[in-house]
Amino acid sequence: MPSVPGNSPSGHTVKLGQTRSLTLDCGAELGPFTVAYQTYGALNADKTNVILACHALTGDQFLLGPHPVTGRPGWWKTMVGPGKTLDTERFFIICANVLGGCMGTVGPKEKDPATGRPYGLDFPVITIKDMVASQAMLLDSLGIDDLFCVIGGSIGGMQALQWAASYPERVFAAVPIACAARHSAQNIALHEVGRQAIMADPDWRGGGYLAHGTRPVRGLSVARMAAHITYLSEQALHRKFGRALQDRSTVSYGFDADFQVESYLRHQGKSFVERFDANSYLYITRATDYFDLAKEHAGVLANAFAGSKTRFCVISFTSDWLYPTSENREIVRALNGVAANVSFVEINSDKGHDAFLLDEPDMFETLGGFLNGAARHRGLEPA
Amino acid sequence: MPSVPGNSPSGHTVKLGQTRSLTLDCGAELGPFTVAYQTYGALNADKTNVILACHALTGDQFLLGPHPVTGRPGWWKTMVGPGKTLDTERFFIICANVLGGCMGTVGPKEKDPATGRPYGLDFPVITIKDMVASQAMLLDSLGIDDLFCVIGGSIGGMQALQWAASYPERVFAAVPIACAARHSAQNIALHEVGRQAIMADPDWRGGGYLAHGTRPVRGLSVARMAAHITYLSEQALHRKFGRALQDRSTVSYGFDADFQVESYLRHQGKSFVERFDANSYLYITRATDYFDLAKEHAGVLANAFAGSKTRFCVISFTSDWLYPTSENREIVRALNGVAANVSFVEINSDKGHDAFLLDEPDMFETLGGFLNGAARHRGLEPA
Repeated sequence: MPSVPGNSPSGHTVKLGQTRSLTLDCGAELGPFTVAYQTYGALNADKTNVILACHALTGDQFLLGPHPVTGRPGWWKTMVGPGKTLDTERFFIICANVLGGCMGTVGPKEKDPATGRPYGLDFPVITIKDMVASQAMLLDSLGIDDLFCVIGGSIGGMQALQWAASYPERVFAAVPIACAARHSAQNIALHEVGRQAIMADPDWRGGGYLAHGTRPVRGLSVARMAAHITYLSEQALHRKFGRALQDRSTVSYGFDADFQVESYLRHQGKSFVERFDANSYLYITRATDYFDLAKEHAGVLANAFAGSKTRFCVISFTSDWLYPTSENREIVRALNGVAANVSFVEINSDKGHDAFLLDEPDMFETLGGFLNGAARHRGLEPA
Repeated sequence: MPSVPGNSPSGHTVKLGQTRSLTLDCGAELGPFTVAYQTYGALNADKTNVILACHALTGDQFLLGPHPVTGRPGWWKTMVGPGKTLDTERFFIICANVLGGCMGTVGPKEKDPATGRPYGLDFPVITIKDMVASQAMLLDSLGIDDLFCVIGGSIGGMQALQWAASYPERVFAAVPIACAARHSAQNIALHEVGRQAIMADPDWRGGGYLAHGTRPVRGLSVARMAAHITYLSEQALHRKFGRALQDRSTVSYGFDADFQVESYLRHQGKSFVERFDANSYLYITRATDYFDLAKEHAGVLANAFAGSKTRFCVISFTSDWLYPTSENREIVRALNGVAANVSFVEINSDKGHDAFLLDEPDMFETLGGFLNGAARHRGLEPA
């Protein structure tokens, strides 16, 4: 390996862009910069068993945990582990904190080498393509030429699509889950609400809160609460909470959290601000808003995948209203348009968008079958 | 008429509860208190042509406008007017600002007679049932015994249902549009986000902002933006805005309103705070959260309408995800359960929840037919 990864509360870290900086979509040059990542399982001798898992908006590199900040299990503990669908006894799984993140990879809360102070809004606005470019540099630094599979849900799925479009020769298989090839007007609107909630908080201080010793926790908490609703489904909320009251038998005729769903939502907001940076939230939502894979290819999504030899497995969930099946199907249609190798499965689930993080046996079975087939073609040992 | 209505920027006002106060659901006694209302058209000799239109969360008594604050046309200009579905040449239409509102009816921004200062959070928490009780008192004061029809969309539809349940003998016909017999967990959650956004604003001052000369405009604006998305549909947002940019040909790589949908949303927030009171937003959302008509009737919704002679017309919209057809259908099922007279129409529209405010010819035709039929049975002159 050309560079020795460091160890820190962020896990492994590596300094990238030391010999050549990364030219971002916005035109800025980034480098040298740090990327924090974790690996699970062991790299095989011919380096053919690498899976890159891409995390979503508020995820990070700690797939399995325990998370160094919260102490809780990782976000994909249902999917990754010994004998699980992403089997750590078979695959070498890499997950890197995205550019703009707040778990060790360079982002607005890290120090700007030019000033010695946190970047804040001086951090350049990054895109999904930039995130993926930094992940490719990470692979280079690890001496890994290509991926057996790139996989992710939500914004992680967008990264998987971007990988297949930007580096087709490095991606044997790609699994975009619960995502879209472009962010819809409604989803841009939902992100904008979250950003406005953060920026409305006086403690945000024009983005310079770290230098002022404040943190816009109220605004960030509201942003999280609003977003969290979109990750679930009406059915799931009804099943979990309905109109049940929290620790009381009658309503209070006040503005306390009378209902369990209110209490739950407040808890979501409160626990989120303990582990996430408000400016990172702005940057990563913005990167997602800007995602429009067709636009990079003369407005024709299929062109993004022309000639691709990658094997795709597209997965959507019936109750996901953030990235509904119709949007996932547009990806499939584009792939079919260039005769790419694609499986598509819509999983019946009432758990909403977050289903990709949860115990969804149909998803595991679909994905397990896909990965086994791809592994055979790749010449990997059977599971 | 037993009391002489006053005139003010709020339109007509009347002081109610002078001889007997209104006992609210929370147990508080309210009275005397002011209700502001508007009327359109003329009352006929035998007072059989009265339609009570109930406004939604952020509506008011100015159905037709011009609105005294904004100068803009009223919120139901598509529905109400000479020759329109709610024909002001035929019907006498009353619309009153709800209890807890901010357009002249008593609410948190009005003066508490006990202190001489604005109520703020000392205003008692009100319910949909309380709102309807105050409307019944308004009718009493106007010398009107019963309604030809009570009609409303969204929270206005809940009031129409509550009218039919609380005062069946006073309601000849009821038209609940785009609503539900109880507020769902998801909708409580969405309301809670709005409330938290307001209460997170330091200018809210624990609800006492008017005494401090501040107003939580940033928090209220965020609440409005979040809510506004729920009033539309993904299809409508896509059709109106898609990913079109606002006054620019390329993205800014920043946090300005690059996209038209962002600019639109910011405008919605900004214009809302000019006309609405933040505490009223808290109170009216809370009243809606508490709405659960079945709960008042031993958990059986049908019991709310047992023996009812009221003619019902329930209307839903295909793209309304705030009060989806399934929830409207629960009302119909309950009415069928007690063999009530009910029509139900699901209107095909991509305009989302706000369709009830918009130009929806199918809604007008359905409703026009229903009202004509009811008018015949009521012995009203044909249109």
